[in-house]
Amino acid sequence: MNKPYNVAVLVGSLRKASINRRLALALAELAPPSLKLEIIEIGDLPLYNEDIDAGTAPAAYDSFRANLKASDALLFITPEYNRSVPGALKNAVDVGSRPYGKSGFSGKPGAVLSASPGAVGGFGANHHLRQSLVFLDVPVLQQPEAYLGGAGSFFDEAGKLSDGIRPFLQKFIDAYALWVEQHVRS
Amino acid sequence: MNKPYNVAVLVGSLRKASINRRLALALAELAPPSLKLEIIEIGDLPLYNEDIDAGTAPAAYDSFRANLKASDALLFITPEYNRSVPGALKNAVDVGSRPYGKSGFSGKPGAVLSASPGAVGGFGANHHLRQSLVFLDVPVLQQPEAYLGGAGSFFDEAGKLSDGIRPFLQKFIDAYALWVEQHVRS
Amino acid sequence: MNKPYNVAVLVGSLRKASINRRLALALAELAPPSLKLEIIEIGDLPLYNEDIDAGTAPAAYDSFRANLKASDALLFITPEYNRSVPGALKNAVDVGSRPYGKSGFSGKPGAVLSASPGAVGGFGANHHLRQSLVFLDVPVLQQPEAYLGGAGSFFDEAGKLSDGIRPFLQKFIDAYALWVEQHVRS
Amino acid sequence: MNKPYNVAVLVGSLRKASINRRLALALAELAPPSLKLEIIEIGDLPLYNEDIDAGTAPAAYDSFRANLKASDALLFITPEYNRSVPGALKNAVDVGSRPYGKSGFSGKPGAVLSASPGAVGGFGANHHLRQSLVFLDVPVLQQPEAYLGGAGSFFDEAGKLSDGIRPFLQKFIDAYALWVEQHVRS
Repeated sequence: MNKPYNVAVLVGSLRKASINRRLALALAELAPPSLKLEIIEIGDLPLYNEDIDAGTAPAAYDSFRANLKASDALLFITPEYNRSVPGALKNAVDVGSRPYGKSGFSGKPGAVLSASPGAVGGFGANHHLRQSLVFLDVPVLQQPEAYLGGAGSFFDEAGKLSDGIRPFLQKFIDAYALWVEQHVRS
Repeated sequence: MNKPYNVAVLVGSLRKASINRRLALALAELAPPSLKLEIIEIGDLPLYNEDIDAGTAPAAYDSFRANLKASDALLFITPEYNRSVPGALKNAVDVGSRPYGKSGFSGKPGAVLSASPGAVGGFGANHHLRQSLVFLDVPVLQQPEAYLGGAGSFFDEAGKLSDGIRPFLQKFIDAYALWVEQHVRS
Repeated sequence: MNKPYNVAVLVGSLRKASINRRLALALAELAPPSLKLEIIEIGDLPLYNEDIDAGTAPAAYDSFRANLKASDALLFITPEYNRSVPGALKNAVDVGSRPYGKSGFSGKPGAVLSASPGAVGGFGANHHLRQSLVFLDVPVLQQPEAYLGGAGSFFDEAGKLSDGIRPFLQKFIDAYALWVEQHVRS
Repeated sequence: MNKPYNVAVLVGSLRKASINRRLALALAELAPPSLKLEIIEIGDLPLYNEDIDAGTAPAAYDSFRANLKASDALLFITPEYNRSVPGALKNAVDVGSRPYGKSGFSGKPGAVLSASPGAVGGFGANHHLRQSLVFLDVPVLQQPEAYLGGAGSFFDEAGKLSDGIRPFLQKFIDAYALWVEQHVRS
């Protein structure tokens, strides 16, 4: 069998007990053998500032960019903060897109899943991120759209994924796997 | 004369020589006596994480929130990064909106000016920020819209504001002053 | 007592049995005495085309524009079609905004309520319309945001408004009435 | 040689002398042999209304849907009206997406080019349309982005395409041709 594709997973919440982080881990288990999902941490990235990126970049930038570079595909799993992308995730996008001409995102197939306790399911965050991904030349999976509301009930107290949401996650990750197959530049 | 309204100015770029920062300073000079513009720094705010905000918040959060609380009105001046709001500015919005029920933005009249070297003038950043401001209950000045393209020519080498852009900035800050007068809760 | 403000209500669905139309009628009943809501029909407006608008405009354009002109304030009540504003409503916006310099929207206080059977509640349509309202210089009520999901249960078989949604509608129209009071140009 | 792919071109302006229509015609000439571009007219489509679509649909709907069905790929060329998609084009999207389960767009590779006389180049229309295309399951070309400002100078008085814009159009249509090759379902 061929090596699986390395999927860099960026999680929009920095909370340890984040539902979105747990969704990322659940998707890693549900993913078909063609994909290997790995969370790339974004919580220690200094706020992007071109002044500190000139010359010697911060070590956290170097490490994040190396992880991005080693990936074949991109998966964004995020809550919505104030009707848009959490600052921490947008900052990671900004860091990864630089320096000019050396973006770590360009051409890699991607998907966006948003989840929130409320009904809207992070629709605003999801589409704002998609607008950035146009600029970053990331072809994004269109269907199934993943705006997951009512996220408070996705895991039981023991941390087990609920049967209600599992079938959708399976469908989503399978569609994404096909998308990645179709788009990874060989 | 009455005391002027305190306008908290949030600048989306952290660069020292940022054009947007210079626009903020230029607007502070052009503003009518009813407004006192002051830049609130956002560059030292840790990435928002509810875990670190529980109990004792980081000192930088406290200080930023106190500055916001002391303001009567809000002015956002920002470049566009990757077709959206820079992560640093979105992070400041996230920090200022919390803890739940204690947002420092609520009800304060605001305006958004975006500027970029390219032609689009930060249109994407401007409107993404406006979407957040709906949630934050910030009534936002609609006209004149301020998507300032070609920002590379706004200041000469000595740092002097160009005559080309000054009339628009004057018009913008005057319209904003009227908007503030109309909306500050008395 | 003063005369009530005339509120032009634009409904995004053309269906006779449209839930959004029924919401408009329900809001007209719930509105405080300071507001008089009236639906302005948009279903017979020819698709906007500057060629047919030059010289003698279509009669339907004239009539619609006269209705807009007679209004003091604007209320948009709409479903979401394909994650955005229904074409029919966007067309009405386009017709009402022309001819250049004679927009019937400019400066009139507005609000947007979106409703759909699904969970997202027309979030996408709501914010796309808000983007247009920036250009049209319509100051828009920010809170409460109105993305009404599960709209299929808002009316019973006899057409009676459900007790579940009434309190929100009352809160929304009362907040809008205050917004109108604050913004109507005298 | 294989048969070329049929590309349905939807033009957002109904004006006879529309710059966007002329851009569509110019792109048809610049397109490589693998693509055959054809404008599908949208100006005679009645405003979408589910009531008139039940039972016997309007003839204009049938004809438009048949044209869509015969296409392999989709190209949207549009101005911006009021910071969003022109109502006429959005109406065509709404008509083509129905009846439920019989969308004429699903799975067909697409691209969006926006053009306007002003500097912003239809950025708002372009991204609003992209949001709809997520729902419609149209994989959209990300780069090069096409927000064409200053469109008033694209054609000389004789209707000849200017040398300034031709290279970009060539680059755009060539990238689109590759996108189509990669995505047409065989």
